[in-house]
Amino acid sequence: MAKGITKREEDYSRWYTDVIEKGKLADYSPVKGCMVIRPNGYALWEKMQATLDKMFKDTGHENAYFPLFIPESFMKKEAEHVKGFAPECAVVTHAGGKKLDEPLMIRPTSETIIWSMYKKWIQSYRDLPILINQWANVVRWEMRTRLFLRTTEFLWQEGHTAHASEAEAEEETLKILEVYTKFSEEYMAIPVIKGLKTENEKFAGAVRTYCIEAMMQDRKALQAGTSHNLGQNFAKAFDVKFQDVDEKNKYVYATSWGVSTRLIGAIIMTHGDDKGVIMPPRLAPTQVVIIPITKGEEERNKILEYIEQMTISWNSKFSFKVDDREGYRPGWKFNEWEQQGVPLRLEIGHRDFEKNQVIMARRDNGEKTAVSIEQLTDTIEKTLDIIQHALFKRALEIRDQNSFVVDDYSEFKSKNDDPGGFFWVHWCGNGECEEKMQEETKATIRAIPLDNPHREEGKCMICGEPSKERVVVAKAY
Amino acid sequence: MAKGITKREEDYSRWYTDVIEKGKLADYSPVKGCMVIRPNGYALWEKMQATLDKMFKDTGHENAYFPLFIPESFMKKEAEHVKGFAPECAVVTHAGGKKLDEPLMIRPTSETIIWSMYKKWIQSYRDLPILINQWANVVRWEMRTRLFLRTTEFLWQEGHTAHASEAEAEEETLKILEVYTKFSEEYMAIPVIKGLKTENEKFAGAVRTYCIEAMMQDRKALQAGTSHNLGQNFAKAFDVKFQDVDEKNKYVYATSWGVSTRLIGAIIMTHGDDKGVIMPPRLAPTQVVIIPITKGEEERNKILEYIEQMTISWNSKFSFKVDDREGYRPGWKFNEWEQQGVPLRLEIGHRDFEKNQVIMARRDNGEKTAVSIEQLTDTIEKTLDIIQHALFKRALEIRDQNSFVVDDYSEFKSKNDDPGGFFWVHWCGNGECEEKMQEETKATIRAIPLDNPHREEGKCMICGEPSKERVVVAKAY
Repeated sequence: MAKGITKREEDYSRWYTDVIEKGKLADYSPVKGCMVIRPNGYALWEKMQATLDKMFKDTGHENAYFPLFIPESFMKKEAEHVKGFAPECAVVTHAGGKKLDEPLMIRPTSETIIWSMYKKWIQSYRDLPILINQWANVVRWEMRTRLFLRTTEFLWQEGHTAHASEAEAEEETLKILEVYTKFSEEYMAIPVIKGLKTENEKFAGAVRTYCIEAMMQDRKALQAGTSHNLGQNFAKAFDVKFQDVDEKNKYVYATSWGVSTRLIGAIIMTHGDDKGVIMPPRLAPTQVVIIPITKGEEERNKILEYIEQMTISWNSKFSFKVDDREGYRPGWKFNEWEQQGVPLRLEIGHRDFEKNQVIMARRDNGEKTAVSIEQLTDTIEKTLDIIQHALFKRALEIRDQNSFVVDDYSEFKSKNDDPGGFFWVHWCGNGECEEKMQEETKATIRAIPLDNPHREEGKCMICGEPSKERVVVAKAY
Repeated sequence: MAKGITKREEDYSRWYTDVIEKGKLADYSPVKGCMVIRPNGYALWEKMQATLDKMFKDTGHENAYFPLFIPESFMKKEAEHVKGFAPECAVVTHAGGKKLDEPLMIRPTSETIIWSMYKKWIQSYRDLPILINQWANVVRWEMRTRLFLRTTEFLWQEGHTAHASEAEAEEETLKILEVYTKFSEEYMAIPVIKGLKTENEKFAGAVRTYCIEAMMQDRKALQAGTSHNLGQNFAKAFDVKFQDVDEKNKYVYATSWGVSTRLIGAIIMTHGDDKGVIMPPRLAPTQVVIIPITKGEEERNKILEYIEQMTISWNSKFSFKVDDREGYRPGWKFNEWEQQGVPLRLEIGHRDFEKNQVIMARRDNGEKTAVSIEQLTDTIEKTLDIIQHALFKRALEIRDQNSFVVDDYSEFKSKNDDPGGFFWVHWCGNGECEEKMQEETKATIRAIPLDNPHREEGKCMICGEPSKERVVVAKAY
C-alpha cells in the first residue's frame, strides 16, 4: 500500500515531502521558498490555533493586529535586533506606482512596530501589564527552505507583553513556556525538553530565550517554541517609560514568544510512518472515518441509513466523516485516509451489519477489532484517548533510546555522526567551545535544561574546563 | 457624559474617529495608511470571523492559505485584472540583501496566485468543485485612507471556487451573496440592498459582480460585501482545463468573494451614537457588564460573592464581565463601557442587594429597569434579543426615511446634495450617463437591485432614453 511514499529508512527527507504531498497538507508555490497550505494542512493548523488561543486567553491574553510593514528606521533602533533580522528581510521600495521615501520592511517579527505603539499606550503603572497576542504571517528570506519547517513566509502567533517589573516579565516568560510545553505534550503528543538558549543562540534583542526542543524520528532536534525575556531592551530603544506607584519614571519590561506552522512539520516528523502522517487525536480535524463496504443500491442505502442512526449523537463527542463516494474501491479509500492520518477508521460491510458490529482499525498500529454497536461510541472515545497516549509514549521511547550521556569528545563525534541523537554533555559556558563544536560536528547546544536530571559537575567536553551541569547537544532542523 | 466624542451633527467624520479612539477599537500606525486593530476591535473581528467561518463551512467550503507574494508576471496574465490592481500594489524589489530577479507584488487579492495553483490541482471533473476560502491580510496602496473603511493593509476573507459549469458558478456566486446578506442583517443588524454592479463598477476580471449595499447614518452608501462570477477569465489566463464526463477538455468556471475589516466601520457608522459605538448583541465580545456599586470592604465582598452566585450559569448563555476595579467611580465606569458599546449594563448596589434585584441599563436607548434576581437570566437573554432587533429596525427606518424615488435630474441633484440618501432612479444602462452623473454629483450607481420593488419602465434620468427598471444611486464610502 502507501503508493508513492518513499520509506523512511530509504530517504527520510524524501519521505517527509512525500507524506506532505500524499496527505495533501501543503504544496510548493511558484514563489521561491513560499508554500501553499492546503485544506488538510490548514484544518490541522486551525485546531492547533483554537487550542493555543484558548490557552492564551485563559492566561489573560487578548488578540490584536499590527501592520505588516515596518519602517526601516524602526528596525534599526534595537542594535542586536537589526543585526539578527535585517539580513533576511524582504523590502518594499515601491508602492502605488511610486518609489517610497523610506523603504518598508515586511515584518520578520513585530517587536519594533509593536513597541512603537506601546509608547503611545503606556504612561502609568495603571496601563500595565499589556498582554497581547497576534496571529499573523511573517517573512524571513531563507536560503534553504523546507515545507512547514522553514519557509520564506510562515504563519505564527507572536505574544508581546509589557510589565512593570523584571520579576513579572520573567514570570510571564516562564508561564508561556509552560503553555507551550503543555500544548506540545498533551495535544501534539510530542515530548519536549524545556531549557534556556545559550548567549549565541538567543533571540536577537532578548536578555534570555527559553525554548522547547523535540526529537524527530531521524534523531534531529527541532525547536518547537521560544519564549523571550526582553528585559528593557525594546523599551529603551523606543523610549517607553511608565510612572510607577512611587511616581518615578521607569523603563517598561517586555517579553515576546511564538510558535509557528513549523509545528505541523514537527507532528509529521514525530508521528508519521511509511503510510503517511498520523494526526494526534486531540488535534485531528477528522478523528474517525467511516467506510461503508457495500454491493448494490439496496444494501448501500440500508447501510448508509444504519450509519446515520449509529452516528446520531456523535457530533458533540468527536469529529467524523462518512466516505460514501461511489466509484472507489474500499482499499483505495483506506489508503487515502491513512495518508491523511485519520486516527480511527470504521469499516462496515454486509456481514458486520448482520452481526450488529463494525470493524475498527487504529491508524497508529494497524490493530483491527470488531466492536459491537452498543459499545461503539464509548469504545471510540476511549480508543482516541489510547491512541493519543500511545503516540506520546512511542515518541518518548524513541527519544529515550536516542539520548546519550557522553563525556568524551571523540565518542560524541562518532555517535553524533551515527546514529545521532540528544547528547547530554558537559560544557564550560564559553561561546568559543560552542562554536568549535558546531564547526566540527554540525551539532549545537539546543538547551540548558530547566528540569535537569544531570546537574552534577564535570569538565567541558571540548576544553576540559569546569562545568556546573550538562547541556543538551544535537544536530537540528 | 461621553467626554471627548464629537457630536455626529457637529462633525460626522470626527465623530467616527473619536468613537474608534474612545472605544479603543483601533489606532493609527506609524506606517502611512496602515492601522493597528486594538484588542476591543479585534475581539469584534474574531466574533465576526467565527460566525462567517461557520456559515462558509456549513455551505461546504474549506480554508487554506496561499502566499502573500505574487510574481509581477502573474498579475499581468488577466488583462482587466492587472489594469485594476497593478496601480495600487506594493512591490518588493529586494530581499535577503539582494535585488530580486523578478519583483514580487504583495497580494491586493489572490486570484492570480490561486489560479496558478488550481492549474496543478485540477485535471478532471472529479477534482471539481473546489470550494476554498482564505483568511488573510491584503495590501492596496490607497491615497486617502480612513480607519477600518479604507486602509492600506486590511484583513479579509477571500473565497475562490472552481466549477465545471457556468450555472454552478453562478449558483455559488448567489449563494455567497445570500450568506453575506444573512450575516449583515441577522448578525450585524445592518439592512442591505442586494444587487448587481454596473460594468463600470464591477471587479477587475469578473463577468458579473454582485454586492450588498448598506446606508450609514450620514446617508452615504457603504459596500459591505461582493461576490464575483469570474466566468472563465482566470481559467483562460492560467490555462486551467478539466476533462469533463464527456471526455472533452474545457476551461474551468470561477467565482471569488470577500468581506473585510471595513465591516467594523459599517457597524460603528450604522449603530453608533454620540456616546460611542454600540455592538450588536450577537457579535458583541462582551454582551453584559456588571458594575458593583459598593462602599467599604465588607459590602464589597458581600456583593461580589452575590454576583458570583448570580452568574454561575451564565457562561454557556452569554458573555459577561464584572468590573470590580477599585479606584474608579461608577459614573466613570458607565461611561467607559458605553464607549466600548457593551449592549447591557447591570448595576448592583447596597439597596438592590437588599431588594434582591439589579438595575439593567440598555446601551441602545438608555432605558433602565429594575429586574428581580429570579428573572434576571431570562430577562437578559430576551433583552439582548430585543436590542438586536431594535438596532436592525432603527437602521431600516433611517434607510427608509432617506430613500427617494426620483425622476427629475435637478431634483435628484438638489436632494443628493442635501439631505443625501439612496435614490431610486431610472437609468438607460449606458456607461456614459453613469460617468456624467458621477462627475456632476459624486453619486454612483450602487446596485441594480435583485429584489426590486421599482421594476416599472421609465426614462433615464440623465439622457431620457428608455429604462427597464430603477437602480439605486448614492454617494458612497
